[in-house]
Amino acid sequence: MENKKDDFSEWYNEIIDLAKLSDKRYAIKGMNIWLPYGLKIIHLIDDLTRKYSDEKNFNEVSFPVLISREQLEVEFEHVKGFENEIYWVTRGGRDKLDIDLALRPTSESAMYTMFPLWIRSHSDLPFKIYQIVNVYRYETKHTRSFIRVREIHFYEAHTAHINYEDAENQMREHLKIWEELSNDLCIDYSLNTRPDWDKFPGAVYSVAFDTPMPGYRSLQVGTVHEYGKNFAKNYDIKYLDENGNLNYVNQTTFGLSERLLAAVIGIHGDDRGLILPYKIAPVQVIIVPIPGENYDKIVNYSSDIINKLSEMNIRCDIDKRDFTPGYKFNDWEMKGVPLRFEIGNKELSDKSITLALRTQKKKIKIKYENLNDVYNYLNAVNNDIRNSSKKFFDDNLIFIDSLDKINEDKMVKLYWCGSRECSDRIESISEKAVLGNVYGDNSSGKCMICGREGKLSVFSRTY
Amino acid sequence: MENKKDDFSEWYNEIIDLAKLSDKRYAIKGMNIWLPYGLKIIHLIDDLTRKYSDEKNFNEVSFPVLISREQLEVEFEHVKGFENEIYWVTRGGRDKLDIDLALRPTSESAMYTMFPLWIRSHSDLPFKIYQIVNVYRYETKHTRSFIRVREIHFYEAHTAHINYEDAENQMREHLKIWEELSNDLCIDYSLNTRPDWDKFPGAVYSVAFDTPMPGYRSLQVGTVHEYGKNFAKNYDIKYLDENGNLNYVNQTTFGLSERLLAAVIGIHGDDRGLILPYKIAPVQVIIVPIPGENYDKIVNYSSDIINKLSEMNIRCDIDKRDFTPGYKFNDWEMKGVPLRFEIGNKELSDKSITLALRTQKKKIKIKYENLNDVYNYLNAVNNDIRNSSKKFFDDNLIFIDSLDKINEDKMVKLYWCGSRECSDRIESISEKAVLGNVYGDNSSGKCMICGREGKLSVFSRTY
Repeated sequence: MENKKDDFSEWYNEIIDLAKLSDKRYAIKGMNIWLPYGLKIIHLIDDLTRKYSDEKNFNEVSFPVLISREQLEVEFEHVKGFENEIYWVTRGGRDKLDIDLALRPTSESAMYTMFPLWIRSHSDLPFKIYQIVNVYRYETKHTRSFIRVREIHFYEAHTAHINYEDAENQMREHLKIWEELSNDLCIDYSLNTRPDWDKFPGAVYSVAFDTPMPGYRSLQVGTVHEYGKNFAKNYDIKYLDENGNLNYVNQTTFGLSERLLAAVIGIHGDDRGLILPYKIAPVQVIIVPIPGENYDKIVNYSSDIINKLSEMNIRCDIDKRDFTPGYKFNDWEMKGVPLRFEIGNKELSDKSITLALRTQKKKIKIKYENLNDVYNYLNAVNNDIRNSSKKFFDDNLIFIDSLDKINEDKMVKLYWCGSRECSDRIESISEKAVLGNVYGDNSSGKCMICGREGKLSVFSRTY
Repeated sequence: MENKKDDFSEWYNEIIDLAKLSDKRYAIKGMNIWLPYGLKIIHLIDDLTRKYSDEKNFNEVSFPVLISREQLEVEFEHVKGFENEIYWVTRGGRDKLDIDLALRPTSESAMYTMFPLWIRSHSDLPFKIYQIVNVYRYETKHTRSFIRVREIHFYEAHTAHINYEDAENQMREHLKIWEELSNDLCIDYSLNTRPDWDKFPGAVYSVAFDTPMPGYRSLQVGTVHEYGKNFAKNYDIKYLDENGNLNYVNQTTFGLSERLLAAVIGIHGDDRGLILPYKIAPVQVIIVPIPGENYDKIVNYSSDIINKLSEMNIRCDIDKRDFTPGYKFNDWEMKGVPLRFEIGNKELSDKSITLALRTQKKKIKIKYENLNDVYNYLNAVNNDIRNSSKKFFDDNLIFIDSLDKINEDKMVKLYWCGSRECSDRIESISEKAVLGNVYGDNSSGKCMICGREGKLSVFSRTY
């Protein structure tokens, strides 16, 4: 297998093949097949996203994949932002369609043509829905599994509120969901308010979650957008307030994609394969029975352990395939399983378990009656992942105060005046694009290029 | 609300609106929005389908929605069967695509272009996968929620085997899954081997699950197909057998759709609304606290019950909305919740629960300490549903032995010689189309039209 440090890009492609996450040999480039193991992981990520959204009183819906040109063109600025990336359905059977239909690139125009039917009065607000669907982009750039694809697994939450203040509170709630989810995934991130020319088409402002990835590039894994009344005015989304007056709603959205999986693979993985945080591991504990004397009893003892773990709601499995233990160890390490139990004759005889953490070399022996501790070990693996990803994050997002450090192979924080001239200058020197102002930071300093007053901002090469 | 008996069609549309299952006011006719409650129900149906499939060692995958014209045209007979129903993507951004891309009408051609990469040797067989995705049909007929739509929620299982016998065994396993699932849904059905001219395009033979629905029509809710080597030969899917020879695989498929939900609505519902079998009820027990003296304590007691039910993995909720109890009763009856708990001052004082079954008029009083019995009451509701749907089935699928009964407003079983002339004759008299021979029936009798030897067959008007 490729060395992650030497050639991240090759390592990344290879690990996806070897762990059987997705198959990119499908006839249409950039549209990949979710293989069983990859699909299980993304479904577990979806389950967490659902949980945190449902806890905050979002309702899940599912809109059609097709959006008519008429729906899209209601918000001109919005559709312009996507027009080069839309797949168009123009024929049904042998007929040319009367009106072209877009494969959704995102669902504003699909949803907001319905909002006026659903939102009538202040008692309908806040209105909070989400869907987990595929969206489509006719990508002309080089595609890469989970990072840049033409069919994208996507979470999109859409909300409407009585006023801007409530919408701003919602923005913070979106960030809270993101905090919970990213904590489960053990991913660090930087919140950056995108410059105006790079915000979501139609938004008042956009905040992105950017994370440094190996390969000296940052990855945008999610975004929240404040729409204010921009869409409401175009799609005529009004509510009757308590005084009987009609007002436009204020709206926000929150988007996440399969890039979350890309981040998990890229940040946590090592030269032995994937490393999965336990909440998204399809198998949290794999039991490998060691062949030899009393093999049948060893398998029985292993099944006993499986039953106990299942009662504790731990996803576990026993590998009885006809391979050597060494092969199985490698295989499950490749698949990123957090804990491995090795059960041989010795473990059978003293009712113990030899336990290997995916993140540590040493093995630990525990007693059968202490099986309840397994969550501690799962958390120990998570802690190891968190520590190393935190270190990676800190090493790869650095503050610089002089231009001669701009070409470091890292994401950089620096003071920037906000002008396009200065960010273009930085990009021309370093190929680092501006990701925006650090969200929530109130410090100020001299722009590294022009010397005018600037805000703390992040620049990086990007995926 | 409409009366189910008098105008089923109106009743059906109204119940979908009132129970908020789906919204058909979307801009593209026949493409409907899954509303939160409807989506929850179909997800619960999906969960059951997944469970039964996974237990039988199927693996879940997810293929891209787009299929190139080249992939589709490998199996000419197959594509011909769909050519009038395919939505075609012909443009990406401002470019005309080099090759047209179809929105999948079904996934044979998508999957089978990959099978030769995945199936190499006999040890790869049986190969069993499924996916739960949307499929697309450019319908020109009148659309109807969950019954005939242009975007269809779909389960499709695809298998490959070393020989025809194994494929036939697989057909029986598909039917076993269907038996488990239909039992959960409390739906009766007739298994019919479709006549050759109505089998799935490319199949050796097709068996459909047809169920009588109100409105004097049958509904095809699922199908299994034996493909033999038909697709394997076109898509070149071969395996190396134990003797080192290359052979074509034998294939089968199994398909289910959102029509399952249509059947549940249509067969079980009554003039008060939906009635849901508990396994697919998003809320299995709804608690309505009765306002009055000690209301706070009543709510606390209700929460206590909620906790206990949740521990038993029962999906439950408490309705604290500012409506009258009567309004709430009607509302949850409309939504088909199997059990309602009414908790007032009396129940509080004697630690009891007044329980109403969705299928019965009388109320039952149980003690708090007997809360464990709740599964019995859920099963009692299921039994009521099963009995009434069985009666409906028996009343609406009748054997007839003379042509003068052909116009009864029911599905009919009769002996038929298998010729198209005779089935066309029956259809011209009665508008009843042939659904095929009764699967597994070996009796024979004189064809009702021509008097030649015939097999027991089912005819019906269809949705």
